[in-house]
Amino acid sequence: MSTFRSTPQEVRLLCRSGEFQTQTSGQANGHAQANLVILTSKDAAFDFLLFCQRNPKPCPLISVLEAGEYLYNSNPDGDNALDQNTYIDIRTDLPKYRIFKDGVLVEEVTDIKKQWNESFYTFIIGCSFSFEDAILRAGLSVRHIDMQRNVPMYNTNIPCNPAGQFSGNLVVSMRPFSIPDSIKVIQITSRYPRVHGAPVHVGNPVRFIV
Amino acid sequence: MSTFRSTPQEVRLLCRSGEFQTQTSGQANGHAQANLVILTSKDAAFDFLLFCQRNPKPCPLISVLEAGEYLYNSNPDGDNALDQNTYIDIRTDLPKYRIFKDGVLVEEVTDIKKQWNESFYTFIIGCSFSFEDAILRAGLSVRHIDMQRNVPMYNTNIPCNPAGQFSGNLVVSMRPFSIPDSIKVIQITSRYPRVHGAPVHVGNPVRFIV
Repeated sequence: MSTFRSTPQEVRLLCRSGEFQTQTSGQANGHAQANLVILTSKDAAFDFLLFCQRNPKPCPLISVLEAGEYLYNSNPDGDNALDQNTYIDIRTDLPKYRIFKDGVLVEEVTDIKKQWNESFYTFIIGCSFSFEDAILRAGLSVRHIDMQRNVPMYNTNIPCNPAGQFSGNLVVSMRPFSIPDSIKVIQITSRYPRVHGAPVHVGNPVRFIV
Repeated sequence: MSTFRSTPQEVRLLCRSGEFQTQTSGQANGHAQANLVILTSKDAAFDFLLFCQRNPKPCPLISVLEAGEYLYNSNPDGDNALDQNTYIDIRTDLPKYRIFKDGVLVEEVTDIKKQWNESFYTFIIGCSFSFEDAILRAGLSVRHIDMQRNVPMYNTNIPCNPAGQFSGNLVVSMRPFSIPDSIKVIQITSRYPRVHGAPVHVGNPVRFIV
């Protein structure tokens, strides 16, 4: 069972030391969370940048680092540009990393220091865990946080807009609410477009007509 | 078949002359529309004021006039306080009036000049027709406007909070949309709380659990 840490720094340092290796829902509530995508060539990075531009709902880009750059300042408006409290070392400060080769998952590791390469492009994409704190503060409960589990995710039959080598169907997360509460959740999440914003669906699962 | 008038003044003057006698959905788009309730004693007016305060979602009060007052300035920030373009004569400028006695509908008339009394209290309550223009401008269509009919309305099993002599279940209007569009409609209507705001339900009819 994980316990919830209140600050991003705590979570980050526990990841860096290898102690924290699970999903991060419910951690550092009130802060934006992000998904990480690293691409290993400029060609692939261009295609993925275009894919994000064409699919802002599933892929809201928060930041793209320069080739080889692995220090990310999570508080660029702060006084201290790159001290330990504000920067993220992309190579070590996430719980785990999945390495895909030719579209196949080949390895899961707790840091990517030895894999790191000057041609790596880092994409930081908003994560829907970010608005869960706002849902909690509205007096609702989020079931997967109560259960200390990852959010349920599903593949849909809604195609994303393809770009270069990237294509595929939309993947969604699912949070169960009563109908009146789901209306509140639409209002709340609409205020957070950079972390996916409002849901694409409400109610029972349906075959989407697109 | 009615045609749609673009300004509140046009609709109002046609009501005043008795030419316009139908419901007002789709009229004077982009302007707030209101429901009218007139009570004939201070006792009843107090109870109803309290009822509105306790039920702001179905009864969002836009204005309450003084006893006997029947001229309402719809543009209080304008230069001309009470010229013909801005004032509403409550006794004549609505399409029709329903007169209830002891809770029973006794008469339907096109003006209430001869009934008017110094003890009448006028309540102006926001109407959901007001946000329909915003829905249209978002590129969606509103079925009852397309059909030039009144909005479908339903009684629910959700009790309002009683106040004095007033009690009853919530009455709702219904507009059909696809699920993705209904999410947009929640976002749009949330910006108009003074004319009912977001829906209380989305999806298929259900037995409400309250």
